[in-house]
Amino acid sequence: MSKSYRVAILGATGAVGTELIQLLESRSFPVAELKLLASARSAGSQLLFKGENITVEAVDEQSFNQVDIVLASAGGETSKRWAAKAVEAGAVFIDNSSAFRMDAQVPLIVPEVNPEAAASHQGIIANPNCTTILMAVAIWPLYQVQPIRRIVVSTYQSASGAGARAMEEMITQAQAILQGKTPPTEIFPYPLAFNLFPHNSPLDESGYCQEELKMVNETRKIFGVEELRISATCVRVPVLRAHSEAINLEFDQPFDVAKAREVLSQAPGVELREDWKANYFPMPIDATGRDPVLVGRIRQDISHRCGLELWLSGDQVRKGAALNAVQIAELLVANNLLRSSLVASH
Amino acid sequence: MSKSYRVAILGATGAVGTELIQLLESRSFPVAELKLLASARSAGSQLLFKGENITVEAVDEQSFNQVDIVLASAGGETSKRWAAKAVEAGAVFIDNSSAFRMDAQVPLIVPEVNPEAAASHQGIIANPNCTTILMAVAIWPLYQVQPIRRIVVSTYQSASGAGARAMEEMITQAQAILQGKTPPTEIFPYPLAFNLFPHNSPLDESGYCQEELKMVNETRKIFGVEELRISATCVRVPVLRAHSEAINLEFDQPFDVAKAREVLSQAPGVELREDWKANYFPMPIDATGRDPVLVGRIRQDISHRCGLELWLSGDQVRKGAALNAVQIAELLVANNLLRSSLVASH
Repeated sequence: MSKSYRVAILGATGAVGTELIQLLESRSFPVAELKLLASARSAGSQLLFKGENITVEAVDEQSFNQVDIVLASAGGETSKRWAAKAVEAGAVFIDNSSAFRMDAQVPLIVPEVNPEAAASHQGIIANPNCTTILMAVAIWPLYQVQPIRRIVVSTYQSASGAGARAMEEMITQAQAILQGKTPPTEIFPYPLAFNLFPHNSPLDESGYCQEELKMVNETRKIFGVEELRISATCVRVPVLRAHSEAINLEFDQPFDVAKAREVLSQAPGVELREDWKANYFPMPIDATGRDPVLVGRIRQDISHRCGLELWLSGDQVRKGAALNAVQIAELLVANNLLRSSLVASH
Repeated sequence: MSKSYRVAILGATGAVGTELIQLLESRSFPVAELKLLASARSAGSQLLFKGENITVEAVDEQSFNQVDIVLASAGGETSKRWAAKAVEAGAVFIDNSSAFRMDAQVPLIVPEVNPEAAASHQGIIANPNCTTILMAVAIWPLYQVQPIRRIVVSTYQSASGAGARAMEEMITQAQAILQGKTPPTEIFPYPLAFNLFPHNSPLDESGYCQEELKMVNETRKIFGVEELRISATCVRVPVLRAHSEAINLEFDQPFDVAKAREVLSQAPGVELREDWKANYFPMPIDATGRDPVLVGRIRQDISHRCGLELWLSGDQVRKGAALNAVQIAELLVANNLLRSSLVASH
């Protein structure tokens, strides 16, 4: 007997929300019923799931009754407001916001890295930050062969990381600039089209921005290595979708490049993309709409005998957000970790 | 008595060539006569200098007679072909190509870093690679306070680095993509608009590309520190003009951030651009058309007690190429290092 589950998507009309709907369908997630939730402003619109139009409902106190899994992607404030209600109603709340990620009671999961953390959930599971997920998938297989001592990473983050409206704004900016007009800046603080700027999340007194500190703190939590040394520089670039990262790794001992390539060619969630003759490596346009994190340009760091350099591109909306959340849901199903499943089958 | 000099620009019609003409005028370089040289294909066109139209001539065996300074920016092959002729004719050949940069007989100069190297020239002086110049200007002032042990740098390089036609191609690509058409790729191997890719210069067997190795080898030569450890990842991004770099520096001892800021706020060729409250730091659009290298986001590396992180944007065509070359010419004039000046004044 195969079970199916009542799923709610909170933030259904956003970039990640619409991707969640598509992934539940394309991955044949056992959905008994799909509830699409959003703010009152977005309620009433219809979205297609398995050939059927589903009307988006305004989230309210009753929304989570009879729901097994909530996939939330409506921002930290919305998650903080509704997570406890969903848990109270018996659902598992898989949250794509940063609200609960560093909460010691909340597992922070990349299924390719720490699936075992799901077992200890108490109703809420956090989906990590997008750049963190992409890096974790790419470097964890190497970490398992030999501990990483230090990471220095620079990111190339697309407009999609700031949501669907940000992507539209960048297109509008590009059109304006090509017509010799002043580009509008409503979502982004500065023009992004044909420009770039350090990630504009709030700055810590250390001088690092929140996005960078997420990469530091979340990677440590996911790997379960509190002392892992990480420095990040996060940069927004005029790419529509898919993030890229230049990652410098320091190990305790030299890590053979051929071995790294072999490990990554077999790693779950990773696709090795290296054509040295054609000078072809991962690019955002090739990662867009795809599940795996594309990794390439693996080379011995010429500045450090225990160093490796690598480069990746991964779809921020997909593996960086929606896909990882759906994989967590799949993990819960496969391991019988839904709360409602402890009570009854339906 | 103020002298003036006969200057020739080889590659006058290119992106750097036209910038050289403007800089000679705006910086009031003492030009007695300006000769514009290019390939036979570009000869005949006219370019404005101090309100006067100058006809571009096809370079030939006689071009360098009666010339004191050649500013060359027409590619390595052209430089290799004509440098010796120019030197033979008595000129100093300031070369923007990579042809002679690592030649032990040829000084490689960033005037803010190693002006003294000019004194030993034997007719040819090399202008470093653009990304190298920008990094050298920004980190040399720190190096003078305390030696740098290791550099890990990731670049964000604009289309301008591949020349005027590449900039045009990126615009054409953007227009095509916005109209739902396939972007043309003639100059670049892949679409650059709304995309990015690792720098497509030829790959070394080490896995580093030529652009990255230039940053390594040229920085060592300019600093005069053969053992300086550097690793670079060079990436082409869809920005029209001005390169950016995320630079991680390791010193032998901790480098106080306030001290770094103080040093850089007074450093020649550097403009500190940090507004922590407004979350505003160097961006390509603000560096475009400007002389200084904009530096900001200076912060203590949280992964290394002796580390500093910094970020820069600098105009690749200007300080990264044309301006640096004109500054070298100014250095020669100021220090009486022109070859013709040893013989006669005119």
